Formats: sequence, structure tokens, C-alpha cells
Amino acid sequence: MTASPSPLSDLSQEALSDLRRSLREEYEALKGRGLKLDMTRGKPAPEQLDLAAEMLALPGNRDTTAEDGTDARNYGNLQGLSETRALFAPVLGAPADQVVVANNSSLALMHDTLVYALLKGVPGGKGPWSKDTDIAFLCPVPGYDRHFTLCEGFGIRMIPIEMTGEGPDMDAVEAAVADPAVKGIWCVPQYSNPSGETYSEATVKRLAAMKTAAPDFRLMWDNAYVVHHLTDSRPQLANILDACAEAGHPDRAIVFASTSKVTIAGAGLALLASSPANVRWYLAQAGRRSIGPDKLNQLRHVRFLRDAAGIDAHMDQHRALIGPKFAAVEQAFSARLDGRDVARWSRPEGGYFVTLDVTDGTAGQVVSLAKEAGIALTPAGATHPYGRDPHDRTLRIAPTFPKLEEVRLAAEGVALCTLLAAVEKRIGA
Amino acid sequence: MTASPSPLSDLSQEALSDLRRSLREEYEALKGRGLKLDMTRGKPAPEQLDLAAEMLALPGNRDTTAEDGTDARNYGNLQGLSETRALFAPVLGAPADQVVVANNSSLALMHDTLVYALLKGVPGGKGPWSKDTDIAFLCPVPGYDRHFTLCEGFGIRMIPIEMTGEGPDMDAVEAAVADPAVKGIWCVPQYSNPSGETYSEATVKRLAAMKTAAPDFRLMWDNAYVVHHLTDSRPQLANILDACAEAGHPDRAIVFASTSKVTIAGAGLALLASSPANVRWYLAQAGRRSIGPDKLNQLRHVRFLRDAAGIDAHMDQHRALIGPKFAAVEQAFSARLDGRDVARWSRPEGGYFVTLDVTDGTAGQVVSLAKEAGIALTPAGATHPYGRDPHDRTLRIAPTFPKLEEVRLAAEGVALCTLLAAVEKRIGA
Repeated sequence: MTASPSPLSDLSQEALSDLRRSLREEYEALKGRGLKLDMTRGKPAPEQLDLAAEMLALPGNRDTTAEDGTDARNYGNLQGLSETRALFAPVLGAPADQVVVANNSSLALMHDTLVYALLKGVPGGKGPWSKDTDIAFLCPVPGYDRHFTLCEGFGIRMIPIEMTGEGPDMDAVEAAVADPAVKGIWCVPQYSNPSGETYSEATVKRLAAMKTAAPDFRLMWDNAYVVHHLTDSRPQLANILDACAEAGHPDRAIVFASTSKVTIAGAGLALLASSPANVRWYLAQAGRRSIGPDKLNQLRHVRFLRDAAGIDAHMDQHRALIGPKFAAVEQAFSARLDGRDVARWSRPEGGYFVTLDVTDGTAGQVVSLAKEAGIALTPAGATHPYGRDPHDRTLRIAPTFPKLEEVRLAAEGVALCTLLAAVEKRIGA
Repeated sequence: MTASPSPLSDLSQEALSDLRRSLREEYEALKGRGLKLDMTRGKPAPEQLDLAAEMLALPGNRDTTAEDGTDARNYGNLQGLSETRALFAPVLGAPADQVVVANNSSLALMHDTLVYALLKGVPGGKGPWSKDTDIAFLCPVPGYDRHFTLCEGFGIRMIPIEMTGEGPDMDAVEAAVADPAVKGIWCVPQYSNPSGETYSEATVKRLAAMKTAAPDFRLMWDNAYVVHHLTDSRPQLANILDACAEAGHPDRAIVFASTSKVTIAGAGLALLASSPANVRWYLAQAGRRSIGPDKLNQLRHVRFLRDAAGIDAHMDQHRALIGPKFAAVEQAFSARLDGRDVARWSRPEGGYFVTLDVTDGTAGQVVSLAKEAGIALTPAGATHPYGRDPHDRTLRIAPTFPKLEEVRLAAEGVALCTLLAAVEKRIGA
């Protein structure tokens, strides 16, 4: 019978040394296994992509006429086919005529939105953002590295805002937006990347209603995981477009989503929804860039997913495949780390990630230890602007792509490295 | 027996009046037919899109593994699959590792190239172009309205340069690039839009070798019609990337093309090729925008087109469909306008357009007359920057989309309007 593990702070120096020795032995054994496991990116597993195998032969059979008679093969239709917009309108929480369906990357839509804002300005603003010498975005942390990379690439100063479990710290947000240089905030409001939390109704309402010094402030509402449930609880996210309209800021939010983690990661559809004015603005800019999106891929999605029930049923199949992987992470972390008081981690109800907060000052070391043992993790700091996690604490674990057994092995390895790093820090301190 | 038509200048006032009366009668009869014909855009006809019907069910059959083992369904591979790059490398005149294969719109690649230049600067430059108070592009005229719209949208001043039959007037180009504000030139070097001319080897060499005051000058080499032959003569365009490298300006040219008018207009592949430095630069910028392109569409193209011979054979099928439409335009113009000395028009050996130069000062009137008769033409001026054709002369005729009989009717109608406008101008003058 194993005794319940003690917090490290309760251990004597000798007990710590013993623990360290035994963990080092385990770690050397782990290294000896020659693992090659990758937990870095939120990628669907091949089995998830197989769920959409039927799409590979669609639309097929000369099925290329859209419901309004459009030949989906030819040029045009910048906003997307009406049936595709109708299919995703409920997902985005907007009427179909306020939805844009584009090619395969919602990140590209966010990029282009920033580009158009920088070079042309947005509705309600005073011209191109790039004319200002200093512009800034609020970046809830932990957050999504690719959002931060966009800002950094365009010289947009990033201001970290702590997440609270109900979304960003709204007191800090409201204080920050008193600065007219602050032009926007990145939000992954449902099953946030990587914390997994869903913004509370109060958070959504405050984001919609708050007074911002910049009249053209934008909520970049990246609802990437809106249909990606892992449990039956399905926390209900308040509708940001409605909340903004009700608060008298109809053009504040731009909603993004995609089917990359619904159908085919590299060949999905990117989705945008916003106010009528913002949609007109977006299309005016995008209309210079392209004559229209790949509408055959839009038909392909409509034929395959069919309707809201079809999307739900399809997402249930994803859940059946990846739910056990999240459970394996939870089990591995719990088995090694419970009671030790060295780490906290999320138990997400949806999305693609587990956030693991290790002992302050050891995240980089945990990544190094894991790497030496053949387990690739996202670099420490990646969840923070400029790659700088001031506490050197937060790691993002992506369990969807590897096979279940690999996820179990990798999570056990990460837990071992987490405890080992904590013990060695304590001994060194 | 009809007498050979006389130039209008040889006609007496009375003969002109008679001619006008008879043309007006014909025109009223034309209006009475209630035509609804569209010659505005260079769109493939449905029968052309049918040539790629087989693609609609590709890749199918779980055929999703690229030659290097990549799962074409998942994220990644920003530059494009190696087999797709290899397929199009000869089309672009670049090694496959200097080719980028992206989503469905080469216009989007040109747009993004400008955006990255504006916000980040290009190799060899001194930073973002948007920091300069005045930047300018050379715009050979007649040219492609969507190029001009990009410049206008981003506040890039446009300088028209006359086309000569061998490409732009190189003396004017060389004089203009002595101004450091001039950052680039739009070129459709093969079967130019809309004149149909192909740049001569001397033009290509001069563009590659000329001294430009801007060290980061760029040739935007939109080779949209590179494989779109209408005859067997196939004028050989000199390789611009080789010419630039030989002239010591390896980073000067960026080559664009697409399969929009090869396979499926709205669901093709966009292609970019350039120097290693430019490709690295492009991918560094594009890598912030997206994780990668739709690689299933790349596989679809490789499976369907297979190789250079496959592309050639496929383009021969297009020629068989659209060649007669170009012939119908030529026949209609010739039948009505030969000997009248009121118009000149191109007899293109490839591409998608016929340029019709009507009597100076009557292009707008020809468009109005045609419109009243139910024949939609691209607005007069569209071939020039800011929509301003200083001679009010040049019209772009797009004969590919309508059915052959419609093309014949429309071209006859346009010829009638052309002659009528010329006669009325002469009488009015």
C-alpha cells in the first residue's frame, strides 16, 4: 500500500534527496526507452480526419449548382454560398447575411482583418491604424501563440491580461482600454486556448459594454472551439454580437471560426461573422484581394455536414476519439502529481488543450527534460506575448494527435519531468 | 455586289448621313431583339469547366498521402506539396524549391505581396513601403483593372505606360524608374490582358537589366495566360527569373500564375515563383497568416493533370472550345469595320481577351450603345489606372463565357455600335 504523496514543502531535505534519486532513476529509464512523442500542436489525429473520408469524393457527380443557381465552379461570390452561410450561421451566432465563408484558414481571416485595419482603418475609426505611432492589443494569458505572432509581426504592442477561469481579468481589461492606443483584444471565448475556460456571461457583457478610449476598438473573437465539446455539460457562451449591439457597440466584435477541427484540418472553411457594417467593410477590402473563395469546398461541406444536427453528430464522433486522450492526461498527471503541491492543470470540457502550470521557474526545465526524453512540448513561454512567461510556469499540452497509448506515455513523462524539476528546484533553493 | 467599304474620311456629309440613318435602323432592330449578353469578364464557359469534371470526385478513395508521406488532410506545408510544385515548376520557369502553391487566387498572392511590402518591406529594401509618403507603380496600358484596384486601394500612385506590341514602352519605363518612388510595375507578359501581346525578349531583358532608383523595385510578373494558347505559334516568352539573375537583380521579379483558367475558375491553385530570398521572405510573412494551404486541392490537381503533357492536352481542349469564339469576334469586327478606318483590334494568339480600340472619344459611347442593346461590356476606361482612358478609346472584349452564337451576336452588335459612334462623332464634329 502506497502512502498518499506529501507536498514537497512537508518533506525533509533527506526525503527530498531520496525522492530526487528515485525520480532521476525513473527519468533515466524513460530516456532509455527512446520515445519520439509530439504534444506540441493542436492537430487532429488521422482517425479524426477519417471521420470526413466521405468528403474526399464530394461534391462529385457534377453536383456543382448552388441553391441560388450559382455555378460553384466559376469565379465570384465573395461572401460565400448562401447554403454554407446558413449552415454555419447558428455556430457563429449571426444571421446568414452577416456571415462570410472563406478558404481554409481562420487565422488568415484574422491576419487580413488586422492588415485591413492597419492599412485602411475600420468602421468608426479615424483612418489606418498604421498611421499611429503606437498601437496595442490586450492579450489574455495564457493564450494562443499565433495571435501573438500576428501582433508581433505587425509591431502591435502586446499587453498581457491574466485569465481568471471566467475569461480575462475584466478589471484589468477595463483599466487598460482607457488608453486610446489599445485597439483590440484577442479572445478565445469558449474552451480557451489553452486554459479551456469559457467566458462567463458577466465577462461577455463587460467586454461588450465597457467604455474604450479607442472608438474603433475590436474584440477579435476567435471562437475556434465553439462546437468542440468533451463533456455533456456544454457551457453556454453568451452571444457576443448580440451583447455588443445591445450595449450600443454593434461594430465592436468580429467572430471567427473554422471547420479545420470539424472536417479536414488543412482543407476546411474559415468563417467570419460581425455587424452589417463590419461585414460590408471586410468584403470591400477582401474584394480587392480575391474574386471569391473555393465554393466547391463549400458545397462539399454542405453536402457532408448537412445541418446543425449533422455538425453535432459529427462532433460527437470526434469526442469519442479524443475524450479518452484527455482522460489519459488527467489520469497521468493525477497519479504523479496529486498531493505534491507542485502543479495545477486544467480539466477542459472542450477544445484541444490542457494547461499545465508547473512550479514557478521550472517550465523551461520541464520542457528540456521532456525533450531529452523524446517528448516534444510547445516551448515554455509560447502561451505568452513575446514568448515571455514571467513566472516560467505555464505549459500547453496538446493530446489530440498522438495515439492514445502515446498520449498516456507522454503525459506520464511530462508529469515525471514536472515533479523532478520541482524537486530539484526545491533542493537547489 | 457590295462595294468595299470606304473610310469615313472619304465620305461626303450626305453619304455619312445616309450611313448613319441605315446604321441607326440596324441599331433599333438590334435593340428590338431584347438581347442579354455579357462580354465583361474573362470567365471560362461552363463547357470549359466541364473539362475538369473528373476533379469533382478527386482525390477520393482515401488517397491523401503525398509523395513525401505528408497527410495532405492535416495542417502544414506552407510552400505546397513537392509534387504540386514540381508539376508547375516548368510553367513558372523556376525550380520546384522556388515555387509556392497556395489557395485559389493568384490575385490574392499579388495582394499579399503588396501588403507584406507595405507593412514589412521586401528584401533589398529599407523597410516598410508604407513609411514612404509617396510610392508609385508603373501600369502598362491597356492593363488589368484588378491590378489597378490593388494599387488604388493601397494609395499607390499609378503611372500609365503605353504598350507597344512587344510589351511596355521600355524607354518610358527606364525613364520612370529613375524616380526612387517607383517601386514596381505590373506585367502580364504573355498574351497580355487585354492586348494579347507577348513581351519580346528585348523587353524582358531590359526589364531585368534596367537601373532602378529604388533598390527594392519589383516586377509583378502576372503570367496568368502562360499556357493559354489559341494558335500553334506559341510565342516563347523569355524566362524573367533567369534574366533578372543574369542581370544581377535576382530578387527583382515575382512570378504569379494560377490554374483558375486551367481547371476550375473558383477552385484552382495560385502559384508564385521567385528567387530563393524572395520565396523565403514570402513564406516568412505568409507563415504568420496561415498554417498552410488546402493540400487536398493540390493532390486533386496532381492526380488530374499529372504532368506537363497533361496540362498541354488539357489546354488543347480549352482551345478547341474558345478558339471559335475568338474567330467569331474577328469575323464580326472584320465584316463591319474593315476598311472604315474607325477601329483597330487585336487578333490574340492566346489569353482571354480582344482589345478593341475604337475611334478616339467614342469608347464610352460604344459601351452605352451596347448596353442599351442588351450587350454588357467592361466600362470604358477600365483598362486604365483610375478608370481614365485619356483617349476614350480602348475596350476589352471577353468572348469566352457566352455561347458561340451569343459571342457572334454580341460582337456584331459591338461592331455596329463602334461604327455608329464613329459616324455620329464625325457628323457632330
